[in-house]
Amino acid sequence: MDDNAIRELLDRVLAPWVRSLGLTAVSADEESATMRLPFSGELRHSGGVICGQVFMAAADTAMIVAIAAALGGFKPMTTVSLNISFMRAVRKGDVTITARVLRMGRNLVFGEVELFDEDGRMAVHATTTYALLE
Amino acid sequence: MDDNAIRELLDRVLAPWVRSLGLTAVSADEESATMRLPFSGELRHSGGVICGQVFMAAADTAMIVAIAAALGGFKPMTTVSLNISFMRAVRKGDVTITARVLRMGRNLVFGEVELFDEDGRMAVHATTTYALLE
Amino acid sequence: MDDNAIRELLDRVLAPWVRSLGLTAVSADEESATMRLPFSGELRHSGGVICGQVFMAAADTAMIVAIAAALGGFKPMTTVSLNISFMRAVRKGDVTITARVLRMGRNLVFGEVELFDEDGRMAVHATTTYALLE
Amino acid sequence: MDDNAIRELLDRVLAPWVRSLGLTAVSADEESATMRLPFSGELRHSGGVICGQVFMAAADTAMIVAIAAALGGFKPMTTVSLNISFMRAVRKGDVTITARVLRMGRNLVFGEVELFDEDGRMAVHATTTYALLE
Repeated sequence: MDDNAIRELLDRVLAPWVRSLGLTAVSADEESATMRLPFSGELRHSGGVICGQVFMAAADTAMIVAIAAALGGFKPMTTVSLNISFMRAVRKGDVTITARVLRMGRNLVFGEVELFDEDGRMAVHATTTYALLE
Repeated sequence: MDDNAIRELLDRVLAPWVRSLGLTAVSADEESATMRLPFSGELRHSGGVICGQVFMAAADTAMIVAIAAALGGFKPMTTVSLNISFMRAVRKGDVTITARVLRMGRNLVFGEVELFDEDGRMAVHATTTYALLE
Repeated sequence: MDDNAIRELLDRVLAPWVRSLGLTAVSADEESATMRLPFSGELRHSGGVICGQVFMAAADTAMIVAIAAALGGFKPMTTVSLNISFMRAVRKGDVTITARVLRMGRNLVFGEVELFDEDGRMAVHATTTYALLE
Repeated sequence: MDDNAIRELLDRVLAPWVRSLGLTAVSADEESATMRLPFSGELRHSGGVICGQVFMAAADTAMIVAIAAALGGFKPMTTVSLNISFMRAVRKGDVTITARVLRMGRNLVFGEVELFDEDGRMAVHATTTYALLE
């Protein structure tokens, strides 16, 4: 999927509230998708760091793109579960999100998402399970 | 904590992007906090159901209120991990969120969050771990 | 399911290594199953507390019983994921395990497991997802 | 840590029930530890595949070795949480387990564990959080 296809996918699929994060595609192929979360003060809680809710939304969204890219196009799916660990606070800078399909089953898709701060350090890690709907 | 105290807490602590969900307090005491997520079309993805990202943000936020209520006031904390299972799609109606502290340790707080649709059926379940910061 | 039916199920289904834990049934109905893990020094690591591996095995096993009871008999299934939090160390005494089906879907079953020490305090909490196989 | 050091660690630390799995060290350095789980019929449930309880115990054990190796020696620690996904059944053959420290914090250690079947395919994936005890 090229940038245009991903942007079109996100515009069509995402809830407006999630779309307002402004996530953009960096690249996507059969194995993984990389997205960028542009920094904004709107994303920080009172502690001055990007809040966990933003990272969860970004991880889930990047995984949907990765699965669509692996399938050669978006198909209806639903998130079954998402487990996320917050390892390092991010005060500023864009965040790079890499989502990877670990196992594409017939019904279930398992994935892993890594989020990196602007210095390339892993800040957040997530694993996900999706169900493909007929 | 009464409604005013919770509203003041959310206004002060939450990132603007999360605050825009419009979560409101129903009740909070030492053991649990109950919040309401008002329905909005902005929260639905193209499949016509409230998206997972909204539930994750609501669960995390409700847990922060529950911990603050259990501690007798907000203290700096950070989410260590959040595990969420999406059991039932929600097409419409307000969502009720109940967050409960399972174990208040010296450094770590374990919690559980249940989200119910307007018919009272559990739609989403989450478990969380927070670290209290000095 | 009565005690005999559960014992027969565990004898038939469990791997010998898991069976050696000696888990016994307390009760099981359509909504939940309660099991007992008899204390043994073999279950403690060098820190003198029951090791996490034991609790994970007990949680998974109790959930299988709960699902079988909810279905009115054992059907082939596979664990999709298990998330477990260790909240309190257990030095001694039997452990009581309660497994509950949160949502019985057509293909996926979501559950929750609570493990209590001999004083009735929750020591471990787990959530699980299983896939029913045709 | 060399093989002897790891074997000595496992003999000293593990509960006898876990030790009976016969996990052996392949290698361990500051970044990761690789272990081998020797196949045995005792590990299979009635469906003829290695049961999830075995993989959970192996993942947790490998992570303890990885953390000890990263710290330059074993220090008292406790598992805070473990999330595991079962992606592919394993009917036979040794299993290779690779545990990696993602983030060594002052109090908390985050890690990731991958388990591969004898054909090198990832069968199970886990993420873990440990607390270091003084």
